[in-house]
Amino acid sequence: MGMTMTQKILAAHAGLESVVAGQLIEAKLDLVLGNDITSPVAVKEFNKIGCDCVFDKSKVAIVPDHFTPNKDIKAAEQCKFIREFAKEKEIENYFEVGQMGIEHALIPEKGLVVPGDVVIGADSHTCTYGALGAFSTGIGSTDMAAGMATGKAWFKVPSALKFVLTGTPSKHVSGKDVILHIIGMIGVDGALYKSMEFVGEGIKNLSMDSRLCMANMAIEAGAKNGIFPVDEKTLEFVKEHSTKPYTVYEADEDAEYDAVYEIDLAKIRPTVAFPHLPENTKTIDEIGVQEVKIDQVVIGSCTNGRMEDLRIARDILKGKKVCQDIRVIVFPGTQKIYLQALEEGIIKDIVEAGAVFSTPTCGPCLGGHMGILAAGERAVSTTNRNFVGRMGHVDSEVYLASPAVAAASALTGYITNPETL
Amino acid sequence: MGMTMTQKILAAHAGLESVVAGQLIEAKLDLVLGNDITSPVAVKEFNKIGCDCVFDKSKVAIVPDHFTPNKDIKAAEQCKFIREFAKEKEIENYFEVGQMGIEHALIPEKGLVVPGDVVIGADSHTCTYGALGAFSTGIGSTDMAAGMATGKAWFKVPSALKFVLTGTPSKHVSGKDVILHIIGMIGVDGALYKSMEFVGEGIKNLSMDSRLCMANMAIEAGAKNGIFPVDEKTLEFVKEHSTKPYTVYEADEDAEYDAVYEIDLAKIRPTVAFPHLPENTKTIDEIGVQEVKIDQVVIGSCTNGRMEDLRIARDILKGKKVCQDIRVIVFPGTQKIYLQALEEGIIKDIVEAGAVFSTPTCGPCLGGHMGILAAGERAVSTTNRNFVGRMGHVDSEVYLASPAVAAASALTGYITNPETL
Repeated sequence: MGMTMTQKILAAHAGLESVVAGQLIEAKLDLVLGNDITSPVAVKEFNKIGCDCVFDKSKVAIVPDHFTPNKDIKAAEQCKFIREFAKEKEIENYFEVGQMGIEHALIPEKGLVVPGDVVIGADSHTCTYGALGAFSTGIGSTDMAAGMATGKAWFKVPSALKFVLTGTPSKHVSGKDVILHIIGMIGVDGALYKSMEFVGEGIKNLSMDSRLCMANMAIEAGAKNGIFPVDEKTLEFVKEHSTKPYTVYEADEDAEYDAVYEIDLAKIRPTVAFPHLPENTKTIDEIGVQEVKIDQVVIGSCTNGRMEDLRIARDILKGKKVCQDIRVIVFPGTQKIYLQALEEGIIKDIVEAGAVFSTPTCGPCLGGHMGILAAGERAVSTTNRNFVGRMGHVDSEVYLASPAVAAASALTGYITNPETL
Repeated sequence: MGMTMTQKILAAHAGLESVVAGQLIEAKLDLVLGNDITSPVAVKEFNKIGCDCVFDKSKVAIVPDHFTPNKDIKAAEQCKFIREFAKEKEIENYFEVGQMGIEHALIPEKGLVVPGDVVIGADSHTCTYGALGAFSTGIGSTDMAAGMATGKAWFKVPSALKFVLTGTPSKHVSGKDVILHIIGMIGVDGALYKSMEFVGEGIKNLSMDSRLCMANMAIEAGAKNGIFPVDEKTLEFVKEHSTKPYTVYEADEDAEYDAVYEIDLAKIRPTVAFPHLPENTKTIDEIGVQEVKIDQVVIGSCTNGRMEDLRIARDILKGKKVCQDIRVIVFPGTQKIYLQALEEGIIKDIVEAGAVFSTPTCGPCLGGHMGILAAGERAVSTTNRNFVGRMGHVDSEVYLASPAVAAASALTGYITNPETL
């Protein structure tokens, strides 16, 4: 029986000719990642193991991004702890405020992941790197500790869902709408412990930024990982960002899938996930013109804080003014993206429209800081989760949307179809 | 007996021909100001008074700047409360995130204070506006409430200290060094409940931004207010920012002062206030080259977040890289300053050097958010206070300095004389 793309990567990293779904394997790791919330726990566990050093100084990355620039004393202490660990263990990929970004925007940009890699990260959205044809998945802090010590991790080989994408998305539709549509279709447990393998001729019509966004949200359908085939766009991205050797894996023709879904990208409409689950989706056509009044718009995060996202937001906001009653907060993914946005005049256009442009940070996405909601407040956000209390008070609401919908809504103060502007 | 400049303003606003130090008066207010920490308390007190409306919708200003963009749920609730109050009472000068800035940078920029005004603000650094030849002072939230209701406040007329400034400051010396020098000289209670009246031909050699910085820190010597005479630079500033009518007051020639200090600006050296009081000053020449190792540099705040400050920092940082081991966080005073800095390429130069450029917010100055220190950490900061725990942990340290010293220190990781770069 043939293997899925994910299974082939895992087999190769386990030193096995083949694996089957459900099999327990031990795989070599190409990168072990942590942030300022999860790494402190991992470091304490690592220290218990008693290793003098991490398995490979170049294959561990620590990114203080969640509560940075330090939100409070606790955040400062956490960052200090991991900074000192990184220094002591000579970890090459520790990224300080000023050099940094949101981990899942930063790691691909720094060329630390390439096709065929196996990556674990103590952050659920580590699945982002599947966009590059790598197997990457979120794990807990203890797994991060073991990974840093041994360079290996145990996995149960996942079965897979196959998403055959065809067609070209319409003007105001991007990867975010596609993945929200899929999550709406299969539900937040629709891919539980499975791979979401995206294939089909429609993929060439999705930018790398859109693919990163889609793989990023695979976890919101419960998936072990999301993964894209490696094509010309992937290789162009890899060439631009990395000098690491890479391997292109492809699913066998006779690979088995638990289910196959055919999706015509041309038919995807701008899509919004209503509170309090990413599966509560409605197309923009199902939402009344002044149905959902909002208090805040958030554009950015590891899901939608890349250049494509900022360009989309700028195109809608430029020369206009955001609705006077709302706060609009924009978060670029990395310092490099910040500088590129500056170069392209995007920051100017967005700030002139009445938004604030933050330093890169996970900030409001997880209710961390820099844009928390009070009781009764509503945000349209390009982030990845809209669970109860995710962006602040338990009685606040988050509506997940694309940068286009978020920017359009910023202008009107209501959830708005960008096509109508 | 003649009156000081402050006394003349107060007499006019009390409808009296003259006042003397120690006299209790009731003065009309030209502006009542609050922020997101103090206004909620003031609003609750205001509501107890039972007024339907504020005394003048155009003479109340509410600026959510301390914990914005909302740091946490508490901050979000506070901001929501004052936003709703401002809307209900139709307060004209409520400034939302995106339109806003740090109150003491924003209020002069918006033209809400002009020479001869009497201003109270529920924030200790309200004394900033003395730079414009206004009487302005910090008060408590209950006084803010009474001020919003009646448009009046009680004052005990202050006596005054006279600072006669002569000469021209040297290249790397700005208002911050002058005021730190003065606080070092007279102590943090050296001007307790007195006016600090700055006079002399040296004033023409101080920019408006330097004067705003100096008046801002009058409170750090315990002063009721700091005040500058109105000259051509003042009037140019007023003309650029305001259409409000203004009145120029001058001290009588026979005004009485508790003390007179003569200060030659040419002799002022770059000055740093060591922990944990602004009076603990040393000139840069008294500090060893690698004597004070630092972890963070903060440039900005209501004290030094204006264009002059950012230009100074840029000139030092441009084309260089900040020390790898430290975080450098830059806070512009307002959105307008942000855009001007962007226009002048300052943001680009500063971010390329490895700093982050924040939205306007009081942030780390008061240990609020966006750059809090852990135990044992040290910051060089252009802010106004270095009390124990001011920027975070009680075992952290803040060294107050000018933007020039802060930027120079950012490059080396130690407190550094900008003249040596």
